Amino acid sequence: MPVSTYSAAYLADFVQGELLGDDCTISGIASLKNASGSQISFLSNSRYQSELESSKAAVVLLKPEMASSAPRAAISVNDPYLAYAQISQLFVSVLLDEGISKAAEIAPTATVSSSARIAAGAVIEAGATVGAHAVIGANSVVGSNASIGDYTQLAANVSIGYNIRVGERCIIHSGAVIGADGFGFAPSREGWHKIAQLGSVVIGDDVEIGACTTIDRGALEDTQIGNGVKLDNQIQIAHNVVIGEHTAIAGGCAIAGSTRIGKRCTIAGMSGITGHLEIADGTHVTAMSLVSRSIKEPGAYSSGTAIEPHNSWKRNAVRFRRLDEMHKRILELEELVKKLAAKG
Amino acid sequence: MPVSTYSAAYLADFVQGELLGDDCTISGIASLKNASGSQISFLSNSRYQSELESSKAAVVLLKPEMASSAPRAAISVNDPYLAYAQISQLFVSVLLDEGISKAAEIAPTATVSSSARIAAGAVIEAGATVGAHAVIGANSVVGSNASIGDYTQLAANVSIGYNIRVGERCIIHSGAVIGADGFGFAPSREGWHKIAQLGSVVIGDDVEIGACTTIDRGALEDTQIGNGVKLDNQIQIAHNVVIGEHTAIAGGCAIAGSTRIGKRCTIAGMSGITGHLEIADGTHVTAMSLVSRSIKEPGAYSSGTAIEPHNSWKRNAVRFRRLDEMHKRILELEELVKKLAAKG
Amino acid sequence: MPVSTYSAAYLADFVQGELLGDDCTISGIASLKNASGSQISFLSNSRYQSELESSKAAVVLLKPEMASSAPRAAISVNDPYLAYAQISQLFVSVLLDEGISKAAEIAPTATVSSSARIAAGAVIEAGATVGAHAVIGANSVVGSNASIGDYTQLAANVSIGYNIRVGERCIIHSGAVIGADGFGFAPSREGWHKIAQLGSVVIGDDVEIGACTTIDRGALEDTQIGNGVKLDNQIQIAHNVVIGEHTAIAGGCAIAGSTRIGKRCTIAGMSGITGHLEIADGTHVTAMSLVSRSIKEPGAYSSGTAIEPHNSWKRNAVRFRRLDEMHKRILELEELVKKLAAKG
Repeated sequence: MPVSTYSAAYLADFVQGELLGDDCTISGIASLKNASGSQISFLSNSRYQSELESSKAAVVLLKPEMASSAPRAAISVNDPYLAYAQISQLFVSVLLDEGISKAAEIAPTATVSSSARIAAGAVIEAGATVGAHAVIGANSVVGSNASIGDYTQLAANVSIGYNIRVGERCIIHSGAVIGADGFGFAPSREGWHKIAQLGSVVIGDDVEIGACTTIDRGALEDTQIGNGVKLDNQIQIAHNVVIGEHTAIAGGCAIAGSTRIGKRCTIAGMSGITGHLEIADGTHVTAMSLVSRSIKEPGAYSSGTAIEPHNSWKRNAVRFRRLDEMHKRILELEELVKKLAAKG
Repeated sequence: MPVSTYSAAYLADFVQGELLGDDCTISGIASLKNASGSQISFLSNSRYQSELESSKAAVVLLKPEMASSAPRAAISVNDPYLAYAQISQLFVSVLLDEGISKAAEIAPTATVSSSARIAAGAVIEAGATVGAHAVIGANSVVGSNASIGDYTQLAANVSIGYNIRVGERCIIHSGAVIGADGFGFAPSREGWHKIAQLGSVVIGDDVEIGACTTIDRGALEDTQIGNGVKLDNQIQIAHNVVIGEHTAIAGGCAIAGSTRIGKRCTIAGMSGITGHLEIADGTHVTAMSLVSRSIKEPGAYSSGTAIEPHNSWKRNAVRFRRLDEMHKRILELEELVKKLAAKG
Repeated sequence: MPVSTYSAAYLADFVQGELLGDDCTISGIASLKNASGSQISFLSNSRYQSELESSKAAVVLLKPEMASSAPRAAISVNDPYLAYAQISQLFVSVLLDEGISKAAEIAPTATVSSSARIAAGAVIEAGATVGAHAVIGANSVVGSNASIGDYTQLAANVSIGYNIRVGERCIIHSGAVIGADGFGFAPSREGWHKIAQLGSVVIGDDVEIGACTTIDRGALEDTQIGNGVKLDNQIQIAHNVVIGEHTAIAGGCAIAGSTRIGKRCTIAGMSGITGHLEIADGTHVTAMSLVSRSIKEPGAYSSGTAIEPHNSWKRNAVRFRRLDEMHKRILELEELVKKLAAKG
């Protein structure tokens, strides 16, 4: 594939920054440490400042107050990290087959835009809709009556269940499953009686869904993922969950049924949120925490204990199981000492 | 799709309940809050009792003692939640293609019932068997010599390995993988030496397996999933695990190798059970708990700490690492105070 | 399928051991408890010693000092567990179709070795390479310009992204996703701005990757998995992670972005490692631990609390949230008691 190149002046315009130094041709983007003399780099974290001087990058994205420190040219911009994100998109190079593969299977009653790309092995079931410029990856399945919005991209081996609605400009990675049945059963003498999961999943616009992430359909109402939500890999979203706009959830989290998560929350990896809770807008949960009650005040929340050598952990964990007893012993000591002090 | 409708009298019969009020036509099921005037609803949790009076539902499933409180008709039934589960099944509406797709790939030596439905892109490998009325979803794979029981349904993109046996009336959701190799290696000087996983997975009847759940084949014997077991999404079941009948496991749990879980247990989400343990019938494990020893007495078990603001958590987590030392200081204080009291 | 059989003498040679007793024909391998009279078994853990005497196994793999205890023949070998691993490979019997299925879809610009096996429904995209004796399972996808090394096996429904490089003799299980985008976004006023993930994933030789495990491509540089690494099911490896040779990670773990894990580490199930850390060679992490700081000294590390009955856990968890306060009360008591003792 030919490599895309851009002039430094073009890139400065593209990120609404100012080019300081001579214009030149840029063929890629890399870290300060690894950039070659034809690449652009960026400094967004002062931790890497020491790498600036020795970087071979032709141009560096820098905050205005740092712009004079570039070893060669700089692009002065208020948010170098955002500028990096914007420029990174220019250097994506994936080979995508054009058009609709003859090895895809499209039901006669499905509606597929002529500008969509459907890869080999993809299956578009009866009544489904695929929007303009959408991409359906190899061996992905769009279930009956599901709809995929314009410009939305499904990677390979994605499963979209029947009746599911996915918005525009979404990205859904391989192995993701949208619209499996929620986990709902009524106990009976003979065992668990399945509750039909009659709701759908409604996914807004500009949502990204990671590899092997699963979002179940609602029991009666719909599971809802707001605009701009970003879900990492291996996340489990149970039935009837509602996730507010621009919330980001990292890998390995699970959200139990009917919980409502607010807007612009961040949930760090491997955290869990139990069912039927309300989580306030702007809540942050640290890694491997279990949220088992509603959170009404935005802020950062945690549970668990900190890593330590196994031998000391073992001794401490034994004491944890006596923690309430330890508390009682402190209470008794306080009583005794108070009496002794009174006597004394 | 035409919507199914039922008379309220029919539904009362169907759940062995009693219709109180006028018969009417029911076109769906919904929550008390969202039900329209042609839908049936239910009250199973007293928490929602306040929504009963204002519900527009044509009929409400209620316990006998509550049956007179319905705003319109009621169906009096001992277990309204179970009745809801039963009726919910009547309103499932999925478009399923009939018969065996020409775009499926079925090995000449496979045996597929003429009443089975095989979707586009499905692959049935050599020697495999698919039972009567079974459904194999789009792009699912049934490995060589595997067998799928009557009425069992595989959603899209399911992977069933070679030699795996799945019982009758099971439901397996997208992305599930039954029969990958167990994680078994012998250490050697050159690194890890793979142990061939020669066992199978044997899945009973009426089992439900969630999206992206993985169940590994046994090393020498078989991994076994009992009748009526319900597994949510993203669960990992290691080799040689045995799960007793009617046990339910929520999303994101992992069960390590050779552990035996009893009957009618419930394991809440994101919990782990380490290897070679025995878990008694009727054990309940709360969310994000780690079970690292066998459980002989049924009951509820937990580990971990409770969620709190990050700043206070940080202070407490620091102290946890000194918990054994705190205990020793309490012991010393008790000694000292005892001496002081004796002196005094 | 015909069952493979081997003479006991051949097996003794195969594992560089010594046959003690009469030669015989061996048709399989099983545990001491379940072995039939035509099977070989092994004793590697003294815990199972009691099962030796009553075992029906024709031959038992035993350490030299135990070799005389076999009920019938023995193969004396220094490491019976390793010998079991070696012999187990002889009894694998999977029906694999030969050659390249007509129902596979191979891009004209892909390069597939004539000795490779490509199953039905597999898709090999433009510019991809599949090495000699490699196996691509049913409905797996090898993305554009990706390369699969000689003798590497992909099970069914595996997703390999564009440009990904997989070494030789690797095994990748169903549902695994190699090369989805890393989770990288720059915050902006309008929400999250996607950072293009321009790196690849480079997987060494002799790597095993479990079912539904996901390994993301790097943001700028490559995510790297060293030779001989073994990854269980449902593991999440974020962008730019580097995993050293022969490290083994159990099911359900997640490794956050840019963390470097050393060689010959073992990470037990459901553990997490946060981003940008360095983990020393030979580190062991116990189950469900969260590693949130770099580890410089090899050894075993843990976090969390131990399982206990829910009612006592609840009382103890309440106290954990007052642990820092408990510590202060102990300090105060120590002060008071010191004063009282001084007075006394």
